[in-house]
Amino acid sequence: MADEAPFQFLHNEVIQYIYKSADNGETENGRNIAKLENMGFRVGQGLIERLTKDTVRFKDELDIMKFVCKDFWTCVFKKQIDNLRTNHQGIYVLQDNKFRLLSQLSAGKQYLEHAPKYLAFSCGLVRGALSNLGVKSIVTAEVSVMPACKFQIMIQKM
Amino acid sequence: MADEAPFQFLHNEVIQYIYKSADNGETENGRNIAKLENMGFRVGQGLIERLTKDTVRFKDELDIMKFVCKDFWTCVFKKQIDNLRTNHQGIYVLQDNKFRLLSQLSAGKQYLEHAPKYLAFSCGLVRGALSNLGVKSIVTAEVSVMPACKFQIMIQKM
Repeated sequence: MADEAPFQFLHNEVIQYIYKSADNGETENGRNIAKLENMGFRVGQGLIERLTKDTVRFKDELDIMKFVCKDFWTCVFKKQIDNLRTNHQGIYVLQDNKFRLLSQLSAGKQYLEHAPKYLAFSCGLVRGALSNLGVKSIVTAEVSVMPACKFQIMIQKM
Repeated sequence: MADEAPFQFLHNEVIQYIYKSADNGETENGRNIAKLENMGFRVGQGLIERLTKDTVRFKDELDIMKFVCKDFWTCVFKKQIDNLRTNHQGIYVLQDNKFRLLSQLSAGKQYLEHAPKYLAFSCGLVRGALSNLGVKSIVTAEVSVMPACKFQIMIQKM
């Protein structure tokens, strides 16, 4: 069995738990997404701290991004990001053609509306990892065809 | 880095989240423990279902326990249970000499009182796994010296 299964199942339960314990409605949905994102943020901080314990200092922002796409992604999702693009002005797009936390959902269009709650935690994960490396960012995600997924990172200049 | 790190960090965050979003007090502590146990139960159900997908039918209760101690434990905690004992009357004791979800806590006695909240999820995990294999049980855990831990399983005859 895939190594990430316990993590996946726990991640699913956390989503269920947060959505079940809250009321329904649009405002509440936003709040739940924020809770998941925050949880991801802290997990990302912890993981990157441990992962970079023995690595050499990063050359630049792009070097950090490559580390996130390779080592960090492999640690959490057991695969690398498939494609990394940047406009060299602070925007990075990370594409994962088979994103693990979506792979349990049916690929049909009918579940597309549920995608955001399965991505919020991971957006936070990336934001937390970058934040601990001194890079402040806004991270969003979008899905066009499941289980492929794009994460967009906008660097916030300080 | 150890494979189970994302799971460990997420597990820690779930505990923080549940405890932070609730009031303090003894009753509330019991309720939080129950929430964690229930979450573990459902994760255990899901995991065992996937793990036993291609295995042969189990001979008996002891055979099931051995599977939990070896395959199931390795899947979640990346090690086997160190010692399995039974009185052959429906009580099983599983000892893990270095339980992963406690290994991040200091081994001193001052954190011993926090152990229950780090064990509740795993008690549920075992109960859920057994439940899906048709074995109804009550699972409790105790710690005498961290990070060693004993899980006691009492089979409920149906």
